[in-house]
Amino acid sequence: MRKNNKKKILSESYIIDNYLKKLNFGNKESFNFENDGAYLNVSKNKKIVVSNDTIVEGIDFFTNDSADSIAQKIVCSNLSDISSMGAAPYCFSLSLGLPKKTNKKWLNIFSKKILKLQKKHNFFLLGGDISQTKHIVLSATFFGKIGNRKIIERNGAKINDDIWVTGNLGDSFAGLMFKKKILKARYTVKKNFIKKYLFPIPCMIGSKLGSIANSAIDISDGFYGDLDKLLHHNNLGANINMKSIPISPKLKNFVNSNKIEINKLLSAGDDYKILFTSNSKKSNFINALSKKNKIKITKIGTIINKKGIYIDGKILNLNKRSFQYNF
Amino acid sequence: MRKNNKKKILSESYIIDNYLKKLNFGNKESFNFENDGAYLNVSKNKKIVVSNDTIVEGIDFFTNDSADSIAQKIVCSNLSDISSMGAAPYCFSLSLGLPKKTNKKWLNIFSKKILKLQKKHNFFLLGGDISQTKHIVLSATFFGKIGNRKIIERNGAKINDDIWVTGNLGDSFAGLMFKKKILKARYTVKKNFIKKYLFPIPCMIGSKLGSIANSAIDISDGFYGDLDKLLHHNNLGANINMKSIPISPKLKNFVNSNKIEINKLLSAGDDYKILFTSNSKKSNFINALSKKNKIKITKIGTIINKKGIYIDGKILNLNKRSFQYNF
Repeated sequence: MRKNNKKKILSESYIIDNYLKKLNFGNKESFNFENDGAYLNVSKNKKIVVSNDTIVEGIDFFTNDSADSIAQKIVCSNLSDISSMGAAPYCFSLSLGLPKKTNKKWLNIFSKKILKLQKKHNFFLLGGDISQTKHIVLSATFFGKIGNRKIIERNGAKINDDIWVTGNLGDSFAGLMFKKKILKARYTVKKNFIKKYLFPIPCMIGSKLGSIANSAIDISDGFYGDLDKLLHHNNLGANINMKSIPISPKLKNFVNSNKIEINKLLSAGDDYKILFTSNSKKSNFINALSKKNKIKITKIGTIINKKGIYIDGKILNLNKRSFQYNF
Repeated sequence: MRKNNKKKILSESYIIDNYLKKLNFGNKESFNFENDGAYLNVSKNKKIVVSNDTIVEGIDFFTNDSADSIAQKIVCSNLSDISSMGAAPYCFSLSLGLPKKTNKKWLNIFSKKILKLQKKHNFFLLGGDISQTKHIVLSATFFGKIGNRKIIERNGAKINDDIWVTGNLGDSFAGLMFKKKILKARYTVKKNFIKKYLFPIPCMIGSKLGSIANSAIDISDGFYGDLDKLLHHNNLGANINMKSIPISPKLKNFVNSNKIEINKLLSAGDDYKILFTSNSKKSNFINALSKKNKIKITKIGTIINKKGIYIDGKILNLNKRSFQYNF
């Protein structure tokens, strides 16, 4: 995480660095708050991966978004963290902060979507809490099984590692632009993008990357910002080949016609793809894994021994690289 | 939990019964959402106890309550659950929902109080999440160590069990009444009660009750309502000796002079004492435990084979027995 001390803004990372880091008592299980999650070290070969993600009405979703979209978002954001650490879903605890106006229809749609996702990804509700809030605030703590595999960390990248990304980037942010009517298009075109924004799908390949990936992070706040987090602690850099960054053909039309800037797409949230690095010898294995699991995995660059993100050889000079709360 | 179907009110227990119970897939680890928490069944002799409690500005605390009081409440409400299940604190994950106006002073006071409580009760911050909310919403997932001891459940009470309670009841609610100026008294008197409301202290005797208690619950929503939860699933009842209910001498003055009704005190929240039942043969052992740990533990009644709570032989006829959200 980048520090914002100079700006005197209370950013998330400033709060973590200055007020929260002292509270982990140096326990490795917290990864010093520099990973997508943490783990419980139950015994030598028994670790449980833990992630915690909260979504808030008016920030992570709109006030009138449907209950099934909200259910999908709280599950997706957490499963994505579990996956990026190399774990498989196990169960979760849910804190439901609901406004007084909440009705049976809302609860029915919400719980049905959660049930559907539980069946699809094989996890159950362990417990939780219900409280009354002015607007919807959902906080979930997810638990992941890791077996004998290693937990993939953000800061394990090695020089000359290939950089890989799953799926396509930017569709969800484009969906948000259509929803906000900043971008315009035919109904069928925009409907497709808005669906990507409302119903993000976590990439669950993580549990198969344990023996391959040297580092991984889920892209949830913006590709550039999340890549920064991967590079930050090792003082490494990345050479990115812009042409290889996976963008869906439909989205490419909007980029090519200058209706949306590529760097905006790559600095915005809700992609929920996995960004990982791996020794170049693993290339064939990764391509085979991609085919077998029918998940697009694209090589987009290389880890280099020089700080910064280089796009086609030129240093990326961009201030806003991801979403972050500022207080 | 009692059901409110007839009233067509969306109570917490209605939401749990009708929308959430189907989501635990029958896993024992969830205790079917009928305990103070759940557990992760890592292996046969390795369980981790999990509790989840959320506190909300305007509901669980007042808008201008100090940051150290809020810190104490989020820790206390969760540690109390961990203790009532017979576990010892291990670590926790914290979701901080903070308004935009949050400043460094608030964060400093808040994190210092958390640190102090961590040192006192020996646990650390594992991870968490920061988000921006309209009002403060803090959700914590606490983890407890149980070792080889059994997890104490709510529904293990046996006929003829003694009923015990730790500490004194009602001080915190009296504090709330003073804070709201519903009750009045000299400054030094009310200050003492208000402190009990603002800085509740969890009773951490739970981890020493594993071999003694047949059932336990933490009194957080109101003595009568929480006793109901202990009795509910076994269709048992309780004979309570009103005189033996532990009330501090100072609070007794207000009860005796009819300034506050005893049944109101026993139906309100934030006591954070442990209510447990135990075979009468364990009586001497419990009294010794009380002395050794300098924690008041009082025998207040007996479990009986007849539904309902009987106060000095008379059935308790009271609708509102605890705090519960209604939507």
